[in-house]
Amino acid sequence: MPKSKTPEAARRGRPGYDQQSVLSVAVAVFNKHGYEATSMGILAENLGISKSAIYHHVPSKGDLLRLALDEALGSLEAILDEPGASSGRADARLEYVLRSTVKVLTEKLPYVTLLLRLRGNTEVERNALERRRAFDRKVADLVDAARSEGSLRSDIDPRTTTRLLFGTINSIVEWYKPGGTLTAEKLADDLLTMIFDGLHLPAAARIA
Amino acid sequence: MPKSKTPEAARRGRPGYDQQSVLSVAVAVFNKHGYEATSMGILAENLGISKSAIYHHVPSKGDLLRLALDEALGSLEAILDEPGASSGRADARLEYVLRSTVKVLTEKLPYVTLLLRLRGNTEVERNALERRRAFDRKVADLVDAARSEGSLRSDIDPRTTTRLLFGTINSIVEWYKPGGTLTAEKLADDLLTMIFDGLHLPAAARIA
Repeated sequence: MPKSKTPEAARRGRPGYDQQSVLSVAVAVFNKHGYEATSMGILAENLGISKSAIYHHVPSKGDLLRLALDEALGSLEAILDEPGASSGRADARLEYVLRSTVKVLTEKLPYVTLLLRLRGNTEVERNALERRRAFDRKVADLVDAARSEGSLRSDIDPRTTTRLLFGTINSIVEWYKPGGTLTAEKLADDLLTMIFDGLHLPAAARIA
Repeated sequence: MPKSKTPEAARRGRPGYDQQSVLSVAVAVFNKHGYEATSMGILAENLGISKSAIYHHVPSKGDLLRLALDEALGSLEAILDEPGASSGRADARLEYVLRSTVKVLTEKLPYVTLLLRLRGNTEVERNALERRRAFDRKVADLVDAARSEGSLRSDIDPRTTTRLLFGTINSIVEWYKPGGTLTAEKLADDLLTMIFDGLHLPAAARIA
């Protein structure tokens, strides 16, 4: 991909398409047919442009995948650098990270869906899975820290705890519809309430 | 498929294979490559028998899928007929059904994985998805009943509650390894503890 695109090169693509919109269509097609089953020909058909026009935006299908995965991973990794993730009690930091993760999932739903369905057959995929595992490990460290400070229950193995946390959060991509009556904020509230406080009515409310 | 197989017909398959073991291999191959991408030729290769030998066990790829999905769905549907699912307080029934669902997931892991990844492109798939939705609706009814009797918190929409419940439970197929140190019973305990009581250390334990 040329570092700076000349106006002439940009004009060769279909009017209205820039790299970001090509990426957005590509991700939808990858999610529908699977990355491996998607050829540049299928992409061109879905974009309504020629294959050579796609190559003006990105040099290869693998680059489209890399850019798409970076969209999801970059947003997730940025969470860990925010103050809410790095200072304060471990359970508050964990809650902050999980809430922000839900936000990224809902805002970048197709990109995160692509990431979560990766099989890891190419180097781009293996790199992305390694970044995802690094993120998961940082969250697992927060779970450990919250257990150590005594704010999380210790009768559940920390690995199981982390698996259940991510299982619950990642499953959102299977059913959440942005723009519906359930806002991303309410979803995050509901999810954190279930995970940390449980669905049983609090004992105090039952007595009252 | 012939209703009763003659000993002669049975002999034509590879020694050691019966319909159940053909099914078991087929499900593993479907889960690895996807149902649509799996041809009878690929199946034959994985079984180490000829295509015609497979046809002695089942008349078509669609029948293999139907039998496999019935293995998962039949076990899930049977839960709802058990006494623990039909008598007592709604929250106890809900807990019983979820615990039993985890049991089925872990015992029939490849079959349930296949069911959860269905896309619904054939009639067999559409029928299976309809049965799965019917099961989900019965669980949603239990959630409603538990809310009505005041044992589940009502600040989370019942549909969201059901989505989060199934999201958490179904995500097990993505990571649970049967035969490891985490038994199916402990997993069910941990999952129900998180869902109903939350990961926060109970206030009583924190005071003590």
